[in-house]
Amino acid sequence: MGHCEVKFLPSGKIVQVESGVTLLEAAGKAGIALHHLCGGHGQCGRCRMSVVDGNVSGGSSSILSAEDTDNGIVLSCMAHVDGDVTAEIPDATRVGERIELDEDAERFITDFPGIALKEFSAKPLVTKIYMELDKPTLDSNYADSDRVKRQLLKATGAKSAGISLEVLKKLPAVLRDSDFAVTVTAFRCDSYIEVLDVEKGDSRECGYIAVVDVGTTTVVTHLVRTSDMATVEKEACFNAQAVYGREVTARIMAAEKKGVEKLQELVVGDINRLVLEMVERAEVALDDVLAVVCSGNTTMIHFLLGLPTDNIRRDPFIAVVADVPSLNAADVGLKIKEQGRLYVVPGIGSWVGGDLTSGILATGLHEKENISMLIDVGTNGEIIVGNSDWLMACSASTGPALEGGSVECGMMGERGAIEKVFESDGKVEFQVIGDGEPAGICGSGIIDLLAVMLEKGIVDRAGRFVEGSDPDVAFVDERGKYTIPGSGVFMTQDDVDNIITAKAAIFAAVKIMLDRLNISFSDLENLYIAGGFGGFINIANAQKIGLLPGIPVSKIQYAGNTALLGAKLAAMSLDAFSELREIVAKTTYFDLMGTNDYVEQFGQAQFLPHTDISLFATENSDNET
Amino acid sequence: MGHCEVKFLPSGKIVQVESGVTLLEAAGKAGIALHHLCGGHGQCGRCRMSVVDGNVSGGSSSILSAEDTDNGIVLSCMAHVDGDVTAEIPDATRVGERIELDEDAERFITDFPGIALKEFSAKPLVTKIYMELDKPTLDSNYADSDRVKRQLLKATGAKSAGISLEVLKKLPAVLRDSDFAVTVTAFRCDSYIEVLDVEKGDSRECGYIAVVDVGTTTVVTHLVRTSDMATVEKEACFNAQAVYGREVTARIMAAEKKGVEKLQELVVGDINRLVLEMVERAEVALDDVLAVVCSGNTTMIHFLLGLPTDNIRRDPFIAVVADVPSLNAADVGLKIKEQGRLYVVPGIGSWVGGDLTSGILATGLHEKENISMLIDVGTNGEIIVGNSDWLMACSASTGPALEGGSVECGMMGERGAIEKVFESDGKVEFQVIGDGEPAGICGSGIIDLLAVMLEKGIVDRAGRFVEGSDPDVAFVDERGKYTIPGSGVFMTQDDVDNIITAKAAIFAAVKIMLDRLNISFSDLENLYIAGGFGGFINIANAQKIGLLPGIPVSKIQYAGNTALLGAKLAAMSLDAFSELREIVAKTTYFDLMGTNDYVEQFGQAQFLPHTDISLFATENSDNET
Repeated sequence: MGHCEVKFLPSGKIVQVESGVTLLEAAGKAGIALHHLCGGHGQCGRCRMSVVDGNVSGGSSSILSAEDTDNGIVLSCMAHVDGDVTAEIPDATRVGERIELDEDAERFITDFPGIALKEFSAKPLVTKIYMELDKPTLDSNYADSDRVKRQLLKATGAKSAGISLEVLKKLPAVLRDSDFAVTVTAFRCDSYIEVLDVEKGDSRECGYIAVVDVGTTTVVTHLVRTSDMATVEKEACFNAQAVYGREVTARIMAAEKKGVEKLQELVVGDINRLVLEMVERAEVALDDVLAVVCSGNTTMIHFLLGLPTDNIRRDPFIAVVADVPSLNAADVGLKIKEQGRLYVVPGIGSWVGGDLTSGILATGLHEKENISMLIDVGTNGEIIVGNSDWLMACSASTGPALEGGSVECGMMGERGAIEKVFESDGKVEFQVIGDGEPAGICGSGIIDLLAVMLEKGIVDRAGRFVEGSDPDVAFVDERGKYTIPGSGVFMTQDDVDNIITAKAAIFAAVKIMLDRLNISFSDLENLYIAGGFGGFINIANAQKIGLLPGIPVSKIQYAGNTALLGAKLAAMSLDAFSELREIVAKTTYFDLMGTNDYVEQFGQAQFLPHTDISLFATENSDNET
Repeated sequence: MGHCEVKFLPSGKIVQVESGVTLLEAAGKAGIALHHLCGGHGQCGRCRMSVVDGNVSGGSSSILSAEDTDNGIVLSCMAHVDGDVTAEIPDATRVGERIELDEDAERFITDFPGIALKEFSAKPLVTKIYMELDKPTLDSNYADSDRVKRQLLKATGAKSAGISLEVLKKLPAVLRDSDFAVTVTAFRCDSYIEVLDVEKGDSRECGYIAVVDVGTTTVVTHLVRTSDMATVEKEACFNAQAVYGREVTARIMAAEKKGVEKLQELVVGDINRLVLEMVERAEVALDDVLAVVCSGNTTMIHFLLGLPTDNIRRDPFIAVVADVPSLNAADVGLKIKEQGRLYVVPGIGSWVGGDLTSGILATGLHEKENISMLIDVGTNGEIIVGNSDWLMACSASTGPALEGGSVECGMMGERGAIEKVFESDGKVEFQVIGDGEPAGICGSGIIDLLAVMLEKGIVDRAGRFVEGSDPDVAFVDERGKYTIPGSGVFMTQDDVDNIITAKAAIFAAVKIMLDRLNISFSDLENLYIAGGFGGFINIANAQKIGLLPGIPVSKIQYAGNTALLGAKLAAMSLDAFSELREIVAKTTYFDLMGTNDYVEQFGQAQFLPHTDISLFATENSDNET
């Protein structure tokens, strides 16, 4: 296979690929994120491009109109590069290349002060320790490395210490050049501490950890300084693996077909790019980034590590690893300090990963006397319920509808997305991220919109469009479609069906968990909701559509990106990391896929809000909008 | 610099080198061991070669006769290769390339059953564990690596376990291909255990550890099977670093000048060659050698690891590391199983290394109620005294005389070496290793010979030759020389001086240690002597020349290669390895170089046996020959 050069317009980005790869893959390699839902199977028709110059084979489809075909439009997922190609990407296909770190997008990457985070003592997983050592004499003649180790054990309380061969090689010279005043970079693992590097003088100020939430849809990073725990930079982008599908299962299938290395390369590339952007903006040397601490669902972590995922999607759904050992970051291709480390927040099971463990730590659910619940809505919904005595977790495959995927006008929560929809004086109004023209609708807007449509009788409780219910409802082939006035953004019957499927999957899982435990909704002291909805989720609307149960709104808190928050706690404190392990040990994983009643509950939840309206009606009295 | 090809006759071995290297260095690179004592400084005249073809620059010397020069003889340490060269190595220059594993040479590499070794439970540092795992189900759905780790912790009693990324990558396939019956290769470090590899089925029989005594003069290895602790092969060779000098200090200076990597390359090459020879003879796959466990003096270990040694020879004599962390064997260039480990027996100080710690463990001196002493005679003499409550160690620079170096007819204990000299019916007789023609004399023979010469009045108590004392004594330039009748092997005044210096250095160190501790020789319950003398040392003769004090012979034991014995115990038992660490923690290192009385004691010991003859005379009554 030969090498081809693919140029993408309007950005002019050029990428080298082997002939035969698809234009969609080439765009992914160029770091360009594209709208597509089906995972590159030529079904959703969202990844249109026009070939301006050069040849591709394939790419035509019955989804494309004759006009499209005449204009050189192809489906980029089906078009294979055949020699050098220049392709133009329409605005509708291209999504923002990264979420802008502006006020609006900060909702993705900010801490949510609404949750009181537990305080841990400052013991970063990788840290710098300054030491002024006694100089050796005939009476104090132990080896250089022993001198450093003794001081290190004293300073950190660790029980045993190691030093790598590379550090040993340079140690004598560094000690003597600096008059025995050095800064040691060391990483912790339980009661063991290992020296990664030794530098002259005091360089404690130059130590950072990149904390990463490796989401199926977005990758979010914070750069934290180890000396004072300050978050100095934040960055986020779409997970470039989206080129292989929006859903976890689609990506696992892609990994089986193309090799997991392809998926690893993409997410590692994302993290490297984000870290580089953060250090450049913060004017920090890449060499001062001592570690990457990741949290993510089990499959994303497997992709990051390049581990086979085949058995995760096959009965009995077995991961390779749940508690990942601390690694050299370079071993997976992460570009930070040469000897830098990679830590992964431990997960619970194949479908309940470290993102949820992080969420438990961040909400403190595992330490409360009364029973609480956390629902983390992602491409998979993960649910935890419990208290200081016990914890039970399960997951449900929700699909990407509530994150803006599998909804025709859906988009991620970036500039141009409708994030809120509400009625004001009988009129349907909306709010756009960045206040510009609406380009689509993100998760929080989608929940609002369906709630408004239900309230206005545009859809009935079964989720079916009602003819003549509203002037903005149109029917095509007997299937309804509602357009938000003045926006051009609409919702179809397929969209509504997908949203109902997603919320029903979550609600059914929640209901079964509680039934099994013989607990009712009113027993819940707190209900935390986490996820990437784009905007702050409107709790009352989430209840109206039956995503959340009808308990008093005061008990429900939007907790934000708990995956990132928990990982940050762990990065900054070995105690927090140990607590994550305790959480894992304490949690029972309950596999819904092995139960019969799930299908029944799922069916009952396919109404708005539910077949059993009593679950929502009575307790909604104190709701606020 | 260009590349040159150097061919050595009579073997015909060819080696590629850069132009400008010496013929001696080229021979070292070709794996040919040569006689030379001065460390390549043109002083000893032992490394003669004749240049048959091609050019060298330098190499002439006043040591060489006119006839030598006419015949193309050069000193190979001074002759720099200038283009392709063919050089012939005379028999007298060449030493055996490895010690033959015959009955005679086995004295180097055998266990000495004279010492009762402590029994430790079998817990090899790296081992293979066979496990038949329960297969995963929906109810038993933990990750593959957790399944293995749980079983591993149960089987070994370790407290925490890790698995490398490479093993994680292959783990799911190996488990499922083998129906969950696998053999795990794992290494221990305190209470931690790490999986290095996982294989289908039961391969426990295919696990070996190479135990190595990295001596300044010889490198000795045993291949031990981990399943039953059986020693299946043995091998030994001369340390190829001899090209840079016989003494430790000469090699440190060479490392400073040429780079420590040169010395590392040589000793790593030696170990690789020995291991390869052992596995080939034992018909074992190199991939089944799971670890190398080394013991050696601190400088040799630094060379093995490629660590700077500059500060070891400079006041206050500081090593980089005394307790070396467990490493990947591949990191230093050792060629065993790809993921195999390297363990080093912990040492006490810069001049008292893991070879002595091993010796303490092997003799069990640290567990006896009464006070014992161990003298390890090498190029440096190391002395330990103590009991179950305390241990004190020191070292003395002895030079290589007692190992057959710095003695004109001296050689190592290989075939052809005179290993015993004794009087029988008034005649001086000798015994040769391999029973052939004598080619020289090794350490045990040297001690015997000096004792016989003293007994016969050939030398006086000051070590000076007595004119007319024996028909076989000749005088040249007023300096005596005694030839053993019928052997052609002789001893000169310089030789005697060197031997006396060596034994005086050791005895002075022994005496000072005891004086400081206010202990007399009669307080010693046991005295162990270890070292590479070639043959079993004759204790009575060692006392006659004043190497060993005059305590009853029944209290003195020749312990053999305790460096290797101790390392083997450690390799086969984590408990033994931990005990080595306890020994280190318990031992006080006493630096003779910082004391004034050493010079005085050294002076007093320069007589045969000593200025103070009472130290030897009275208690010698029960000696046997």
